[in-house]
Amino acid sequence: MTQFPVLPAGVSAAAFARAVAEFSEIVGREHVITEPEKLAPYRKVYIAVPEDSVAPSAVMMPASVPEIQKILAVCNKHRVPIWTISTGRNIGMGSAAPAMRGEVILDLRRMNRIIEVDPDLASALIEPGVTYLQLKNHIEERNLPFWVDAPSPGPIVSPIGNTLERGHGYTTNQDHMYSFSGMEVVLANGDVIRTGMGPLPNCKSWQAFRSGYGPYIDGMFTQSNFGIVTKMGIWLTPVTEGAKSFVVYYGKREDLPQAVDTFRRLRLAGTISVSGSILSGLTLLGFGQRRSSFYAGTGAIPREEVDALLQQRGLPQWRVGGVVYGDEEETAIKLRKIKRAFEATGPTQVLIEDSSGVVPSWGEGDLASATGHLSLDAFRILNFIGGGGVMWHMPVSAMKGHYVEQLCTMSEDILRRFGFDYLSMNWCNDRDMHQTTGIFFDRTDPAQMRAAHDCYDALMQETSMAGFGNYRCSIHYMDKAAELFGPELRSFHRSIKRAIDPNGILAPGKSGIHI
Amino acid sequence: MTQFPVLPAGVSAAAFARAVAEFSEIVGREHVITEPEKLAPYRKVYIAVPEDSVAPSAVMMPASVPEIQKILAVCNKHRVPIWTISTGRNIGMGSAAPAMRGEVILDLRRMNRIIEVDPDLASALIEPGVTYLQLKNHIEERNLPFWVDAPSPGPIVSPIGNTLERGHGYTTNQDHMYSFSGMEVVLANGDVIRTGMGPLPNCKSWQAFRSGYGPYIDGMFTQSNFGIVTKMGIWLTPVTEGAKSFVVYYGKREDLPQAVDTFRRLRLAGTISVSGSILSGLTLLGFGQRRSSFYAGTGAIPREEVDALLQQRGLPQWRVGGVVYGDEEETAIKLRKIKRAFEATGPTQVLIEDSSGVVPSWGEGDLASATGHLSLDAFRILNFIGGGGVMWHMPVSAMKGHYVEQLCTMSEDILRRFGFDYLSMNWCNDRDMHQTTGIFFDRTDPAQMRAAHDCYDALMQETSMAGFGNYRCSIHYMDKAAELFGPELRSFHRSIKRAIDPNGILAPGKSGIHI
Repeated sequence: MTQFPVLPAGVSAAAFARAVAEFSEIVGREHVITEPEKLAPYRKVYIAVPEDSVAPSAVMMPASVPEIQKILAVCNKHRVPIWTISTGRNIGMGSAAPAMRGEVILDLRRMNRIIEVDPDLASALIEPGVTYLQLKNHIEERNLPFWVDAPSPGPIVSPIGNTLERGHGYTTNQDHMYSFSGMEVVLANGDVIRTGMGPLPNCKSWQAFRSGYGPYIDGMFTQSNFGIVTKMGIWLTPVTEGAKSFVVYYGKREDLPQAVDTFRRLRLAGTISVSGSILSGLTLLGFGQRRSSFYAGTGAIPREEVDALLQQRGLPQWRVGGVVYGDEEETAIKLRKIKRAFEATGPTQVLIEDSSGVVPSWGEGDLASATGHLSLDAFRILNFIGGGGVMWHMPVSAMKGHYVEQLCTMSEDILRRFGFDYLSMNWCNDRDMHQTTGIFFDRTDPAQMRAAHDCYDALMQETSMAGFGNYRCSIHYMDKAAELFGPELRSFHRSIKRAIDPNGILAPGKSGIHI
Repeated sequence: MTQFPVLPAGVSAAAFARAVAEFSEIVGREHVITEPEKLAPYRKVYIAVPEDSVAPSAVMMPASVPEIQKILAVCNKHRVPIWTISTGRNIGMGSAAPAMRGEVILDLRRMNRIIEVDPDLASALIEPGVTYLQLKNHIEERNLPFWVDAPSPGPIVSPIGNTLERGHGYTTNQDHMYSFSGMEVVLANGDVIRTGMGPLPNCKSWQAFRSGYGPYIDGMFTQSNFGIVTKMGIWLTPVTEGAKSFVVYYGKREDLPQAVDTFRRLRLAGTISVSGSILSGLTLLGFGQRRSSFYAGTGAIPREEVDALLQQRGLPQWRVGGVVYGDEEETAIKLRKIKRAFEATGPTQVLIEDSSGVVPSWGEGDLASATGHLSLDAFRILNFIGGGGVMWHMPVSAMKGHYVEQLCTMSEDILRRFGFDYLSMNWCNDRDMHQTTGIFFDRTDPAQMRAAHDCYDALMQETSMAGFGNYRCSIHYMDKAAELFGPELRSFHRSIKRAIDPNGILAPGKSGIHI
């Protein structure tokens, strides 16, 4: 019996003990966790795999880049793999847990400095442990006219972590992958590089100009295990003169393609100011209401029953929500165009925020998100079934009505096959639509665990083969997800991995990349 | 005396002869050029280095990806380096010539298929040899409501080539680095990879969703020598309901910071719809007029003379130009805000396009560019001195008034030191400003060649050390440009290069990257 119930793959108990001792010297014993009970929060997941299969061997919490560099030297010496987290709130995708059992968690929560917020450029230079709430509070204290662009679990997550995972928010900077400028990255060999214009002395544009000179490498460090990002320039959204929301209800399932095509045209034209959403009826019902409160059966609720439930409650089959920015005059003009365009498609209702500021039902959420408010409201959907199980399937379609309909129908059919309801949020961008479909299940029920696991596999596999690739996935599925993208790309990733991390110490298995 | 006056570095005449014979078998003898007189256009440059120093050894023009794969096998066998061009119009930065003498030009002009234009998504899948004009004509023939977003030399250049070099245009897709989705890339080992969602069978979002799954690698293939891009998804701009332009004249040199800050605020707020420009007075004078027509001296025109010339001709020290999109009402609202904001800064004149459609002086160019028109008008500035010499210095500043002023003053001082006038176009984005400063000189005058060469060196070196890094540079300066960004980044680039192109056959020296 070793003192470490979980060890990294291929590392002996003796070597690991030496590594832990060296880690403790670097960061201080109090910032290294090896006690099983204290490790529990790091193995707690919502996904449909046993916690033991994703249990870390230890956690360490460095306070600085030099400490990370020293940690990497120890990792290289003992071949100890590490899994980096910012705040570890990757809920429904693996939370703080590593892709492979035994990886040591490198928890960057102590590196939480807001180094700079530029009042002219609407940008912030921050460390990984900073949360959206912390950044928002800082901005408000300084009375700066900026919003943070946070994803649904905004308050508690890290802008850097969310950006590296390709998260989305709700203002004009919502595609986080394209709303940052400049990184500082620690490589596996301990080298510290700055991207963009960052390497220059007295640099005048690190947070302003993304591309730098030579290959644009920042993207390589997203959804990857090629380096540890320790600083990033995040773009903030200037507060707009005004904002108003609109909501469109569609009563028939087959209305979806028209809703999608109309949204796309308005968004591509810039009439709708930011991405919006198309929610399925059951998603509306499931927000904040446990299923058992309105349905007593097992398995997926039959379609006709869903229809009846929606009708009873006055809910649509599809709800389109969006926001426009501008002053009173500008938003009025845009909303007029939006109303006209959607009304031509035969919806049940088009609810437009009027000039008196009265917001129609359901509009609060859209508008609040699009104007920099943070909340954990979206989490209300997590309790739909109860029992602590949720996994997100995140496929992407072009923003074309018939494609989106194909994907939604397909997703619903697969979910039903495994006994799950179809709750999905279709995020409408301009040219693409990415879907967040939830599998909600009771983690204490082995049959549901198995069904959820297999359902996720079927969703990933079948939608991918139909051409709807996922843009993000649960830690337990990363190898298969990478496989779905074919051997050439994977071989390319591996060539890079071997070149810059020959001992494979950085997050083996992340996005299916191993040495 | 060999049959090849120029050979690639380290390749014997015999090996090169064998390689050329094999290339000829692959692409057909008629698509391989080795005759010095036929190679002349490929060594013709505007930059201040002797053509002989950047002379290619040969040119080959493949017609397909399989031909490129076979070419790469030959290159690997004989260690023959190749320099890829799309149309080779990198004017003022090296045109079609390679960074290192003797590289074989891989000219992709025959790969000029427009594979698809999606009428819903406003996107095009194209090959490297396609030009903006060809794409525009195709769109017009199909009556699609899209504009191409072309850079100044639009008609004759390749959207793929321009995007890979981080070119900019004038519509909402103007930062080309962030206005494409999906690539097909041939690697040095002959593997063909697709990025983004492209590897999936029946893919539904290759041209719609950029990021794919796992590391975002597309950026690696820009300004680099890591692969040969053979297809790309280019985003088109939906024709807007309307567009209007505005122009602001400032009479004093010291007005610049206010102009910059005002533009930034309006652009970040979305009031100004696309990036604009701030041109120095002499730039306005130099468009289409040879210097000798208004100044007879040698060396830089003294400041007082410049001031007098501008005053005589009613030209400002700085001209701000920009465009707003929207219908009549929307553009009127925006222009009103713009007028008010700039008028508060004490300009000489604010010219706003009125509702009758009358465009004020100098406005045509801005508006035409921002509404999809293509022209070679910008080339008129190339003849400012005459003698075929031009080099562009392209430093970047954050879009802050006092930084931009520092950069402009610095650039002018350096140019004057070497006897050149200050003609510069400051492209105003939201958070950054990138400058295009021209050195115009007579290539037939050895003293001017030397001065231009040394001036470029001083501009690059001194502005970089002050924190204004360049985002693009002449082929002759790539090693030094990479050096300015420090050893860590360069070593990282080299690690990747060695891993994926171990024989260094792809464009050695590009962006300072060698094996």
